[in-house]
Amino acid sequence: MKPVKVGICGLGTVGSGTFNVLTRNANSIAARTGRPIIVEQIGARRDNPASDTSTTQMTRDIFDVARNPDVDILVELIGGYDVAKELILTAIEHGKHVVTANKALIAEHGNEIFQAAREKNVVVAYEAAVAGGIPVIKCLREGLSGNQINWLAGIINGTGNFILTEMGDKNRPFEEVLSEAQALGYAEADPTFDVEGIDACHKLTIMAAIAFGIPLNFERAYTEGISRVTPADIQYAEELGYRIKHLGIARQADEGVELRVHPTLIPASRPLANINGVLNSVVINADAVGETMMVGPGAGAEPTASSVVADIMDIARALEAPQTTPNPLGFVENALKSTPVLPIGETLSANYLRIHADDHPGVMNAITQILSDHGINIDAITQKAIRESDGFADIVILTQTIKESTLDKAINKIEGLIDIQAPITRIRVETMA
Amino acid sequence: MKPVKVGICGLGTVGSGTFNVLTRNANSIAARTGRPIIVEQIGARRDNPASDTSTTQMTRDIFDVARNPDVDILVELIGGYDVAKELILTAIEHGKHVVTANKALIAEHGNEIFQAAREKNVVVAYEAAVAGGIPVIKCLREGLSGNQINWLAGIINGTGNFILTEMGDKNRPFEEVLSEAQALGYAEADPTFDVEGIDACHKLTIMAAIAFGIPLNFERAYTEGISRVTPADIQYAEELGYRIKHLGIARQADEGVELRVHPTLIPASRPLANINGVLNSVVINADAVGETMMVGPGAGAEPTASSVVADIMDIARALEAPQTTPNPLGFVENALKSTPVLPIGETLSANYLRIHADDHPGVMNAITQILSDHGINIDAITQKAIRESDGFADIVILTQTIKESTLDKAINKIEGLIDIQAPITRIRVETMA
Repeated sequence: MKPVKVGICGLGTVGSGTFNVLTRNANSIAARTGRPIIVEQIGARRDNPASDTSTTQMTRDIFDVARNPDVDILVELIGGYDVAKELILTAIEHGKHVVTANKALIAEHGNEIFQAAREKNVVVAYEAAVAGGIPVIKCLREGLSGNQINWLAGIINGTGNFILTEMGDKNRPFEEVLSEAQALGYAEADPTFDVEGIDACHKLTIMAAIAFGIPLNFERAYTEGISRVTPADIQYAEELGYRIKHLGIARQADEGVELRVHPTLIPASRPLANINGVLNSVVINADAVGETMMVGPGAGAEPTASSVVADIMDIARALEAPQTTPNPLGFVENALKSTPVLPIGETLSANYLRIHADDHPGVMNAITQILSDHGINIDAITQKAIRESDGFADIVILTQTIKESTLDKAINKIEGLIDIQAPITRIRVETMA
Repeated sequence: MKPVKVGICGLGTVGSGTFNVLTRNANSIAARTGRPIIVEQIGARRDNPASDTSTTQMTRDIFDVARNPDVDILVELIGGYDVAKELILTAIEHGKHVVTANKALIAEHGNEIFQAAREKNVVVAYEAAVAGGIPVIKCLREGLSGNQINWLAGIINGTGNFILTEMGDKNRPFEEVLSEAQALGYAEADPTFDVEGIDACHKLTIMAAIAFGIPLNFERAYTEGISRVTPADIQYAEELGYRIKHLGIARQADEGVELRVHPTLIPASRPLANINGVLNSVVINADAVGETMMVGPGAGAEPTASSVVADIMDIARALEAPQTTPNPLGFVENALKSTPVLPIGETLSANYLRIHADDHPGVMNAITQILSDHGINIDAITQKAIRESDGFADIVILTQTIKESTLDKAINKIEGLIDIQAPITRIRVETMA
């Protein structure tokens, strides 16, 4: 099948991540899309050692990509305003679809760019512009499209959230944590965009337009940064039952739409209050669904690439007429794999065991001996003091990871001991690693 | 523009919710889709007082809907196996697209249904079948489509999660909480599907097929219920730093795919461990994005309808050639509204104020007098004991909700007091209600 040809402009962190994901996952991407997706050309001022582009056509002039007749989709990952805008408009002019991660450009010049795209009947996609790897644009625009959105609130700048989290956890002032974030690479040398809320406001502007069906209104949004929040404020808020988060909030009020980015106290019991570090999260409150929340990495090479590639695949599927919605399972006909489902006995888990036993001295030893005989290591073992009416007590054991069928055999043996009440309670442990 | 005509089969909780959402939000749905979506016919054994269907064509024979030449999309909300399957296959045979919330049917007979749909080139959509209002199918199938999925884990049965949460919070045994859940309407009279994990396994089967590109494998999945978990297990797990959740887990292992539903210990620090009550949540771990989590209502009339309507809208957009992907902001041309963005002064918030003051007796009174003069009510006021090097101390105030511009005036007055260090720190409070 004829491949879809992508031209990537910009080979920094996200550009390189996008190239790597498209290359590494080429097979499954083709199986899901119905057509191979190949990187036809890369436009970048320099190579990036994080990507092996030795067999890919390179140009130092990104506008070559926008004019390349072989490129179906231009991926703009250079960032900034003027050149990026000219690049995208040139690509649109040449009939190309566009995928971008450029939140600043979409928030401030999106109305004009979308108009140009409409006139040329091409798609401009920008999932990666908001909340990195979290597919929040798709969720708002398609997944919740039947709803009236009441409000949405998001932690949509990882740098700011990292700084507030550290200030609270370690009782350290803003300037000190900012320096640390800069040293760790979480904050830019000029941190204004992040800590003054401009970056968050770009993302909020985009989400609000989709949520409420209004044009992009960046210049009318209210923005306030986190530099004046002190560790004392975080502490006082905690005593009152709140956490301080730098939120972007969009709300449908009676007289209009509220668009504001500012430090915000939210109840500590709220899941959003517990999203820490560089994570992003968006809560959406809408008339039919009620409330839904998404959490994930808001930045980084491959998380952002995840969204860029999803946009490319959406466009590729749309090009593949008459297949206009994804296949039911997301893979094209005959692409489903015959990977076996493993019998439960073949799976690996750590395990919690609760053994109700007559706790005389030999019992514990007999149990650990059986586990040892089966090669099962113990992470924790506790004999509970509470003797119940039957005179027995609970022994609780956490095993290390072991094959299920091996543990079955050991449990069977233990249940055969005379001082044990069968059946033993066994609950699998998932470390989610 | 020619409307898209929907036929709803089944007018129970979800059917009625779907009718109500389609009717109530008809304007914004048309603005997002580009075509009005109308309910052409309802097939149901009886009317439902929760929906005013007086002007809608009704039939008592659901197969009338499947054969109605005016219906473009059949929405199957009758549940169950045999009749639902025959209904869907009849609709497909008549060239109709199908939307269903029927997890059992898709998990157990989806392979056959998808094959029939492929042959007739129609869409079968089932977002509502997994995790109710959370758009997890769309997220997996499209939003993360560029990734290789490593594993996913979900709390995907609200009844089971409610029971485990209650058992832990109130130290009450399974049977007692189950009875309470039945009385509250959270559990069925026959709770087998929920508490034995069959319902969760249906949903897991569907997610795993999409995640790994394998056929639906319900009969090969491992299922274990929660009826043997005791309050003591929950307590012991807590002492070890874990929570017990009834998880559906799908994992790509070296030799195959693991598919299992069982009670599971997960680290208490994990956000998933803190999803309580009837909420659903799915965590997806994938090669590019890393980890992402979605949270929301897993059942209920309108949350489920939210997903049903989103599916209907996706199909309606696909019918609207050549517009094959949503518009950039999700609304068609000229449908964007001119809703004003409110100036920040016009917005309403509760507020946290930190006032650094020389704490002699008159100061507190002067401050509260100014707030009172401006009609600002106080929720909490604390004078912090810690005198700082300047001899001043912090007074912390939580105000009730007030218009921003009113508070600005009051703050201005307070800052004019001689014993106050300006500026006052003001942070907005969001109760997220």
